Amino acid sequence: MLKIAVDAMGGDFAPVSEVEGALEATRDLDVGVILVGQTEKIQSELDKHRHTRAQGGASWPNSRIEIVDAQEVITMNDPVANAVRRKRNSSIRVAAKLVRDGAAQALVSAGNTGAVMMTAKLVIGTLPKVDRPALAAVLPTLTGHGTVILDVGANAECKPKHLYEFAVMGALYSSVIVGVHKPRVGILSIGEEEAKGNDLTKEAFKLLKHSPLNFIGNVEGRDMYTGQADVIVCDGFTGNVALKVSEGVFEFMMSLLKKELTSSLQTKAGAILSRPAFQKFKKRLDYAEYGGAPLLGINGVTVICHGRSTPKAIRNAIAVAREYCNGDISTKIEDHLEFEEKVAL
Amino acid sequence: MLKIAVDAMGGDFAPVSEVEGALEATRDLDVGVILVGQTEKIQSELDKHRHTRAQGGASWPNSRIEIVDAQEVITMNDPVANAVRRKRNSSIRVAAKLVRDGAAQALVSAGNTGAVMMTAKLVIGTLPKVDRPALAAVLPTLTGHGTVILDVGANAECKPKHLYEFAVMGALYSSVIVGVHKPRVGILSIGEEEAKGNDLTKEAFKLLKHSPLNFIGNVEGRDMYTGQADVIVCDGFTGNVALKVSEGVFEFMMSLLKKELTSSLQTKAGAILSRPAFQKFKKRLDYAEYGGAPLLGINGVTVICHGRSTPKAIRNAIAVAREYCNGDISTKIEDHLEFEEKVAL
Repeated sequence: MLKIAVDAMGGDFAPVSEVEGALEATRDLDVGVILVGQTEKIQSELDKHRHTRAQGGASWPNSRIEIVDAQEVITMNDPVANAVRRKRNSSIRVAAKLVRDGAAQALVSAGNTGAVMMTAKLVIGTLPKVDRPALAAVLPTLTGHGTVILDVGANAECKPKHLYEFAVMGALYSSVIVGVHKPRVGILSIGEEEAKGNDLTKEAFKLLKHSPLNFIGNVEGRDMYTGQADVIVCDGFTGNVALKVSEGVFEFMMSLLKKELTSSLQTKAGAILSRPAFQKFKKRLDYAEYGGAPLLGINGVTVICHGRSTPKAIRNAIAVAREYCNGDISTKIEDHLEFEEKVAL
Repeated sequence: MLKIAVDAMGGDFAPVSEVEGALEATRDLDVGVILVGQTEKIQSELDKHRHTRAQGGASWPNSRIEIVDAQEVITMNDPVANAVRRKRNSSIRVAAKLVRDGAAQALVSAGNTGAVMMTAKLVIGTLPKVDRPALAAVLPTLTGHGTVILDVGANAECKPKHLYEFAVMGALYSSVIVGVHKPRVGILSIGEEEAKGNDLTKEAFKLLKHSPLNFIGNVEGRDMYTGQADVIVCDGFTGNVALKVSEGVFEFMMSLLKKELTSSLQTKAGAILSRPAFQKFKKRLDYAEYGGAPLLGINGVTVICHGRSTPKAIRNAIAVAREYCNGDISTKIEDHLEFEEKVAL
């Protein structure tokens, strides 16, 4: 059975979300979970679930859950390079070592994103044919199935060939995990024509045009949620901005809507009647439904969750990690990059 | 009286929106408008408004409206460099010449953004102390007054000193047009700390830190609509992506909400009761309310409108152009850049 190492000290609500998410995952899925962190805190959180199945949660004791101790914690405010170097016994590092040593097949963390990425690269290592691992996110779209966008934060500066690598990795992820046949790959740019964009996107366009991928050209920010492309590639700076702007617009619109809907008795009554619609609407846009963001190109599976992850988000990230392992994406990435090396570039 | 040259052939609904917007502007504001384009089309559109004040529109004939003929039209699909060079008698170019020659004080166009920017730079010219003119947009925020973001598309590649120029120009725009005292200036980046970002933002951070501007450091995409900064600077690629992602999220959320709200009789009834709230909500987010995007750093006022501009959007863009002229922003930009040249850099 697959074992997933979960950094129990990572998220804003750690270890509450991590423990409950792990229990739910072991109940629902064919996986074991190793909770890594301060044993006493994890144990006391697990004890809250002793012999209960409250709200559908799984019970404890549970033979599929193990604890591995790690006393140090990297916080959201720790300077990344320093923390990764100094805190040799952090929950992130100990969990990564379990993956490196084969005791676990995947790492899931809702901790400091920069620290998780750096630790995964340092401890687990990058796939031999990959130059730059990339963080991918799966976006909800109007057409229903998700669009994979990468890089969303691992590499602030990129070269054209990195965007090419991202395209290969993203297409494999889309096809194996999202289930898209011949995923359409686009470059995030500021105009559809080949000549539109910055130096990076224009050069990447040339590389992708001659690749065996199903390349559809440039896509614009406006198309991120239309499902027009299955995979969107960009440098990690642009991708991170695009993702955070999306969050900002969502929060802004929800605040504004709430304000207007509660401004009179009539609109309030309307909002109450419409509540089921709002609930479905929010569920569609809930990042927790999509689990975490996979770090593609690592020599082992790493899934990074939002700092504010709920138990459901952790459970779904474990599910993503499991599919990633079962789909054997890392081997496929290596095979494809080797093939492309020989044929296309 | 100020005269504004309006490219009557520019937008998707040209010359309908342009003519009606011009009539509304001359009715509401102390301005004259020169409609530039195919005389026969403009004339026939104006004739529809003859002696009527239907729906609050202004009537025609109207001594504040003139027509200047330009038979060529640059379309949205024209390759920019070619069109600007070849179409010597395009409505955009003729309108820009009116500004260059002093027959008009400002140019307003809903045409091909790239063509308008290039024409303005070529024909009207850049301010002597400005290296790169930048396109600015005013974003709605939760706190009510708008946040100025630039560059949103004029310069896909930027150097740190360009971001510095954008900061000076944006701060002046915020203070004179939006009415903010000591506008807070931020750099759009992917983390708040100085060390977060790409090479461009990190270098720009150093320049801005030592400037006399009210610099508040990096802001993230999430903060674009919170009103945390009054001015946000970034390269034109990132700014354009950020703006178009915002549009995409807005359209995605509206489609999804509509779908859910019409999914049952109950939620439909709720939506009908809530209609006034939805209308106010949409009005707050309507780009038409904000008029157009000023091209800052041009030796004359240029305001660029959305291709899909309504008459109201054109009217409001004319209002923005008028305030820009009255605020004498160009002179102020020159003064500030000269001062900063001597003192800070």
